[in-house]
Amino acid sequence: MDWTVFFAFFVASAGAASTGAIFQPGEWYDRLAKPGFTPPNWVFPVVWTVLYIAMAVAAMRVSLLQGSALAIAAYTAQITFNTLWSPVFFGARRIKAGLIVITLLWLSVAATCLLFLRLDLISGLLFVPYVIWVSIAWALNFSIWRLNGDVAPASP
Amino acid sequence: MDWTVFFAFFVASAGAASTGAIFQPGEWYDRLAKPGFTPPNWVFPVVWTVLYIAMAVAAMRVSLLQGSALAIAAYTAQITFNTLWSPVFFGARRIKAGLIVITLLWLSVAATCLLFLRLDLISGLLFVPYVIWVSIAWALNFSIWRLNGDVAPASP
Repeated sequence: MDWTVFFAFFVASAGAASTGAIFQPGEWYDRLAKPGFTPPNWVFPVVWTVLYIAMAVAAMRVSLLQGSALAIAAYTAQITFNTLWSPVFFGARRIKAGLIVITLLWLSVAATCLLFLRLDLISGLLFVPYVIWVSIAWALNFSIWRLNGDVAPASP
Repeated sequence: MDWTVFFAFFVASAGAASTGAIFQPGEWYDRLAKPGFTPPNWVFPVVWTVLYIAMAVAAMRVSLLQGSALAIAAYTAQITFNTLWSPVFFGARRIKAGLIVITLLWLSVAATCLLFLRLDLISGLLFVPYVIWVSIAWALNFSIWRLNGDVAPASP
């Protein structure tokens, strides 16, 4: 455990996590038609807290290994798309643009998971719940788009 | 030049850059009282395009070096805050929260610049214009806050 490196990756996670606090679901989201598998609202911050800590631990482990340049570059891409999703979906209320962002997020998280697995088994496994959760979130965004269309963007 | 690693960092830059297209200044920003040193709107995308490419090149160079874990972790933090600023300022129209984000951005960009300089002179120098630009952007956000207060948040 390198605490300084972990701290820096944790700061990145906290930055991404802050979007969940700044751009919240609220009434607009409550009114949307949602599929039966939609988790209750309280589940999201709980799951995300665990995932943000797990991904920072995984990134710390991998970044200390030789030959990790591509894996960490993929990690940087995934945390950027992660930061982007809440503002696009809950902030701008653009359901279809949110679907594009979460598709890019899924691709970059899956790529990071595979690259991490190749370098360090534990780090790769720490990413597996994240891949599963983003798959669920993707299905949720997709269903909401199918059920509601790209309605009700935020007033500019 | 490792093109695969560059491409992954470039994807992260593109993700951060997309916030400039999704959360645009518009009428709300035009109406705000702004300081004399405010650059015209067209300057921002031009400068940011150069900076996003330069930072991806710098990150690629540093990530290939041994002992770069902390430097790349700091880089990951800075690109997260970079992605966060436009949605908070132009999306949520929260001037004071934007000032907090850009302060964290400045700190993480300055830290990344110093850590890059220690590992690779060219990468550190590629970050210097970014530090200068975020300093100007910080002063602009600060002045807008002083001149307007934290007025006119977006209607939720």
